[in-house]
Amino acid sequence: VRDVAIAGVGLIKFGRYPDKHVDDLAAEAVLEACKDAGIPFKDVQFLVSGNVYQSHAMVGQRILHKIGQTGIPVVNVANACATGSTAVREAYLAVASGAYDIAVGVGSEQMGKMGLLGGRIEDPYGRGLISEGFVGSGTMPAVFSQMGVEHMRKYGTTFEQFAKVAYKNHKHSVHNPNAQYQQEFSLQEIMNARMISWPNTLYMCCPTGDGAGAAVLVAADRARQYTSKPVFVAASVLTSDPWQERDLAMFDVNTLTRLAAQQAYEQAGIGPEDLDAVELHDCFATAELLHYDNLMLCPEGEAGRLIDDGDVFLGGRIPVNPSGGLLSRGHPLGATGPCGIAEIVWQLRGESGGRQVEGAKAGLAHVIGLGSACTVHIMKR
Amino acid sequence: VRDVAIAGVGLIKFGRYPDKHVDDLAAEAVLEACKDAGIPFKDVQFLVSGNVYQSHAMVGQRILHKIGQTGIPVVNVANACATGSTAVREAYLAVASGAYDIAVGVGSEQMGKMGLLGGRIEDPYGRGLISEGFVGSGTMPAVFSQMGVEHMRKYGTTFEQFAKVAYKNHKHSVHNPNAQYQQEFSLQEIMNARMISWPNTLYMCCPTGDGAGAAVLVAADRARQYTSKPVFVAASVLTSDPWQERDLAMFDVNTLTRLAAQQAYEQAGIGPEDLDAVELHDCFATAELLHYDNLMLCPEGEAGRLIDDGDVFLGGRIPVNPSGGLLSRGHPLGATGPCGIAEIVWQLRGESGGRQVEGAKAGLAHVIGLGSACTVHIMKR
Repeated sequence: VRDVAIAGVGLIKFGRYPDKHVDDLAAEAVLEACKDAGIPFKDVQFLVSGNVYQSHAMVGQRILHKIGQTGIPVVNVANACATGSTAVREAYLAVASGAYDIAVGVGSEQMGKMGLLGGRIEDPYGRGLISEGFVGSGTMPAVFSQMGVEHMRKYGTTFEQFAKVAYKNHKHSVHNPNAQYQQEFSLQEIMNARMISWPNTLYMCCPTGDGAGAAVLVAADRARQYTSKPVFVAASVLTSDPWQERDLAMFDVNTLTRLAAQQAYEQAGIGPEDLDAVELHDCFATAELLHYDNLMLCPEGEAGRLIDDGDVFLGGRIPVNPSGGLLSRGHPLGATGPCGIAEIVWQLRGESGGRQVEGAKAGLAHVIGLGSACTVHIMKR
Repeated sequence: VRDVAIAGVGLIKFGRYPDKHVDDLAAEAVLEACKDAGIPFKDVQFLVSGNVYQSHAMVGQRILHKIGQTGIPVVNVANACATGSTAVREAYLAVASGAYDIAVGVGSEQMGKMGLLGGRIEDPYGRGLISEGFVGSGTMPAVFSQMGVEHMRKYGTTFEQFAKVAYKNHKHSVHNPNAQYQQEFSLQEIMNARMISWPNTLYMCCPTGDGAGAAVLVAADRARQYTSKPVFVAASVLTSDPWQERDLAMFDVNTLTRLAAQQAYEQAGIGPEDLDAVELHDCFATAELLHYDNLMLCPEGEAGRLIDDGDVFLGGRIPVNPSGGLLSRGHPLGATGPCGIAEIVWQLRGESGGRQVEGAKAGLAHVIGLGSACTVHIMKR
């Protein structure tokens, strides 16, 4: 496998864009990433586009139609919430293969104010695009609350500990200009907010919205040609659910993430103790806490202590979601993957401003998609 | 780029399967391909699944749920009619990268009796799955008829010449047990059939239906470990529309295919004169004839002569669509890609029965997807 580096990343500010189409948002992120890499779009040799709601509708080619049709191969991918990170990974594999020296992975989604409700989803802006949730037995708040309740039962985790996760991420978000919401809440405000599904209150659930993000992958041995601050992909892993029997109603998010994390640490040749920053899939506050265990940031069952001790706050031992995570950024499905990757890239370059982890040398970005797909990327300076 | 071989292929018989789900059909094709390769599914390291109508609905993971959940990475792709061949190509790139030694590309679709009508498409069997055509300005019969009319105007091609394409493919289909229709028609029957969109009559349009096909890709240097008859991927190319200005209402199918063909011949280091069999995208009889020019099987504009002289019939100089093509097999979008690849594999192994091209050593499989994606695979013994 040829070594691969990230030469540039780009995100748009997440929010509501009823006047734009999803390919407009995605094109903006691609151009931003190319600008960051100092690579003109005409030099890009391969494009992988991730989108869920319009995965059948050639979003990747529509991006080229907006930017410039260069005739390059375009692939559209979908992998639930891991759609965008899967797109980056397919671009990574294509560069690793030696077939291309410069590839772009982009993820985008336009949800408007719709959620993923398990039923039929109309285009949020009434333009006739129709999709279908693939949720099955439950809605997302219910599924991830169940997992939290199970963690409480098994390890004695408390409502307050889950709430602290949201407190931390909203606190971090104040320094992230790309977040949809950049607002700090007190722990009491979070705990007293409207209960959505016990133990997750309103501020402990990620908002919906529109967004896009992209990364430019290049052959590592040519990386310094494009950028003075290349970030190397030390591991790029994707897993699916390894079990027929499932712990919970829907899928075993824990086993799925553990499998990906184990493979990623092995591939990168480093352990969780070597990480300086982690961006993980905090679709709900309960989810983030589970993943402290799953990504082996602490001994199993001690996730509650990790948040209580302040280890995962900016300034702590292993800051988690310095960007503010999905809880503040929002979670337009296909757009989420590149965000964590971009944040780690910025952290490793020392460009994260008020949310910078000083001297960060290695970081991890994790995304989990229902039904099932888990990606873990480890990046190093 | 590491060399890659095809160790096994599998198709189901195309038709209508109202009692099965699309993942059942796809799982069957995957198991068939694994059996053909002599590789148990548990040894497969990477799966790429192509599907259009349910591209957002984790078809790849559902295939594993049917066969066995081994935890391997699964990617869902969509690229219009080139969806299945894009899946095979992504599996190819993953093996070429060295990340995996055994990968499967599978394509599937369940259309029932619905077409791609440019409007809303309900699940054909009423199970609530909903998708959306992305056709834009015209329906498929209109678009591909326009191209035929343009070919008539430009090169003097005749209605009878187009009809002969359908005559040939239906004639070939009699020997293909996987075709949905295995029925020969006289040229007169074809020309007198109900006119769908001039110059394509009913028998000159591909039927809809359900189908699935798969290919097992392995590292070339290990290929003989799995099979005594490996077929090597000499070229795997994907292109998108290189022009902003388009010849026809929708997209420039000609330029798109020429670009892919040129790149593929260059990659394979052979020319059209070295091919023993071609499977190309005959969604309509008019389309097949255009591609004689585009794939450079004849000097530009002489496609009509190629069919008149019998060159493209079984037994001719360069048999095209020995399988009977889409015109007889049917064209369930995501399933089509692997069919051409499987047919060329069987031809190169000498396993094509009554439709065998004697001593075939090299073949080409071509698929074109609207909006835009064109794949060309060249395979060699």
